[in-house]
Amino acid sequence: MSKFAVMGHGVVGSGTVELWYKNEKLIKEKQGIDLELGYILDIREFPGLPYSDRFTKDINDILNDDDVKVVAEVMGGVNPAYDFVKKCLERGKSVCTSNKELVAKKGAELIACAKAHNCSFLFEASTGGAIPIIRPMHTCLAGNEITAIEGILNGTTNYILTQMIENGTDMQTALTEAQQKGYAERDPSADIEGHDACRKICILSSLAFGRHVYPEWVHTEGITGIAPEDTKTAAANGYAVKLIGSVKRCDNGKILPMVAPRFVPLTSQLGHVTDVFNAIMVHGNGFDEVMFYGKGAGKLPTASAVLGDIIDCAKASGTITACTWDDSPDDSFIEKYTDVPVSMYIRCEDVSEKEIAELFGSVKFLASDNNTVAFITPEKKESEIDALCASLGDKVKNRIRVL
Amino acid sequence: MSKFAVMGHGVVGSGTVELWYKNEKLIKEKQGIDLELGYILDIREFPGLPYSDRFTKDINDILNDDDVKVVAEVMGGVNPAYDFVKKCLERGKSVCTSNKELVAKKGAELIACAKAHNCSFLFEASTGGAIPIIRPMHTCLAGNEITAIEGILNGTTNYILTQMIENGTDMQTALTEAQQKGYAERDPSADIEGHDACRKICILSSLAFGRHVYPEWVHTEGITGIAPEDTKTAAANGYAVKLIGSVKRCDNGKILPMVAPRFVPLTSQLGHVTDVFNAIMVHGNGFDEVMFYGKGAGKLPTASAVLGDIIDCAKASGTITACTWDDSPDDSFIEKYTDVPVSMYIRCEDVSEKEIAELFGSVKFLASDNNTVAFITPEKKESEIDALCASLGDKVKNRIRVL
Repeated sequence: MSKFAVMGHGVVGSGTVELWYKNEKLIKEKQGIDLELGYILDIREFPGLPYSDRFTKDINDILNDDDVKVVAEVMGGVNPAYDFVKKCLERGKSVCTSNKELVAKKGAELIACAKAHNCSFLFEASTGGAIPIIRPMHTCLAGNEITAIEGILNGTTNYILTQMIENGTDMQTALTEAQQKGYAERDPSADIEGHDACRKICILSSLAFGRHVYPEWVHTEGITGIAPEDTKTAAANGYAVKLIGSVKRCDNGKILPMVAPRFVPLTSQLGHVTDVFNAIMVHGNGFDEVMFYGKGAGKLPTASAVLGDIIDCAKASGTITACTWDDSPDDSFIEKYTDVPVSMYIRCEDVSEKEIAELFGSVKFLASDNNTVAFITPEKKESEIDALCASLGDKVKNRIRVL
Repeated sequence: MSKFAVMGHGVVGSGTVELWYKNEKLIKEKQGIDLELGYILDIREFPGLPYSDRFTKDINDILNDDDVKVVAEVMGGVNPAYDFVKKCLERGKSVCTSNKELVAKKGAELIACAKAHNCSFLFEASTGGAIPIIRPMHTCLAGNEITAIEGILNGTTNYILTQMIENGTDMQTALTEAQQKGYAERDPSADIEGHDACRKICILSSLAFGRHVYPEWVHTEGITGIAPEDTKTAAANGYAVKLIGSVKRCDNGKILPMVAPRFVPLTSQLGHVTDVFNAIMVHGNGFDEVMFYGKGAGKLPTASAVLGDIIDCAKASGTITACTWDDSPDDSFIEKYTDVPVSMYIRCEDVSEKEIAELFGSVKFLASDNNTVAFITPEKKESEIDALCASLGDKVKNRIRVL
């Protein structure tokens, strides 16, 4: 019999314990494993639970118990999670985490530490919540070269944008609504400024391309600049505005990770992903494209992913090599986004369609009312579009890249 | 160094070999495996290929080579595939197959044979082509009880229905078009009568609920009865008509697998899956719902799934227990579909809305023009809806269940 431990009894941690006890019998039968919940680490007291006897405040209880083979880290934040995870790995205990910040900032180091101690560091729950994405990428899709990934990786911003698209709500009202429903934090900056999605695209990029992509290397824009007239123009022309975390392999072999709002055509499955749902589209040289869709957050959905990892670690012997990547000495493998061709939605005022056509070439005009002209440019290097926009000065009111 | 063999050099087989050679270096590095393509079994000659020296016409070359640890069966049909697969498993060689007919008809026996000889029988490619679904179900989602599955499992019929919905094409014209594009066989009956989707829902049901579901136990309807006026009425009311393979756990513990056309609301992701694409929505008690989307057929997409299985087998030692199920002594665990509540779209002629409302209760009327009345019933046992329809005789022109 081996044991697992859960570090942190917050939303995800308590969900992991709840889901384990709910499905324990089924899991053991189906997976053929003999596993028990040994410890729950939390500094708080949780009396009166059927498993109150499992709580400890001392990490050493977990570290010193040789029967503990797997530890779930669901505390969040880098400290003290990083220290605790490292100590577990150094004792040869595999760690499963839902902590995207930890993976995005310290992934390469913790993966190397796990390898050195013949155990695994898994993180299915860190990206896309309940959605199976990390493991399918390194197992089912393992026969392919991954060429690109595009995902709706943050439920809060997708909820806000859905409200703006479907009900014409303005950004601030939609955000307040999201906060009232518990979808957004009191300080929503990590979500609406794109940092949360950035951590997730770092993780997916690192896994797909084999080298750690650090958050500070990723050009990241949030959704705060989007106006209801942008989402309205998009909808009227067969697009939805979505915050997209993306990465692609460029022709020169470099990769371009980015987080930014995008005009997503409704002919793409991603265009129909609404509310707090997440979805991730992956492109590869054999399977072409596959998409994974589901709940990107929440107590039991995230717990589902953590538990899947715990089960995998309990069955595996040694490091699960395929779910690893190397550290990167520098960012020279990251392409400069301004050097890459892109098609752009632009909304201008006080300028004629004729002037726009002369400047940008064969654009697609979307809406021209009063003194507003909205259009989509042909594909050009982003730096060239920048230069053209600069020549228009403050007549340019907004710009959103097209997916 | 271990070897794998490919049995059958048709579309999927040649794709598997092509994708292997294309990505061999990447696969070996990332997965940490030492694997070579040892043999390709085919009765035909394939001279002039870079790997022509790997061909054999004799299964014994594969069976007698102890270095061959994994065999891909991509011949299709039950004979001689079944014999060949069994012989491989009896020698302790794991088998990966894209052959849905073989898995649906002989899965339980071949799984037991693999277990008895400490190897695996995997079939990711048998359902949903390139789409990762089998492995995510028994790994990522392993912490959950699966409660229901609904899928667009056949690309040919989805192409035909998409043409009917988007262009008002009639069934026969759309079918001919599908045949011209190579999406449909010359004898299209396995697709349009639902047998192909039936095999796939058998596989998913067996995996989700742990007991073999045989095709003859599954109520199966095809798409031949669908008229353009049905798809038109659906579209005008926020639905798409899709051929859905489904299974759910009923309150009495039995399961209800079924293949039938459905009115799918466009609020569901499945409603937006068009053309030859497949998608599978899975429901569980932790993750809630996740959907997997991609190419359900084709040379390289199917090869991608086969190759993922080959890699997994090359890495695994012994049987991958989680990807198995038991045989079923009888069909007593299958619920009778007529006993289960369902909501139904019904199209009638020569009957008034008043009569319909008196018969069916609070229906939702969809369209009433000339002498046609189309409506959706409230949820009732299907046998009750049958009885009510019988009382209307041949005034009932069509009926399609609502998802």
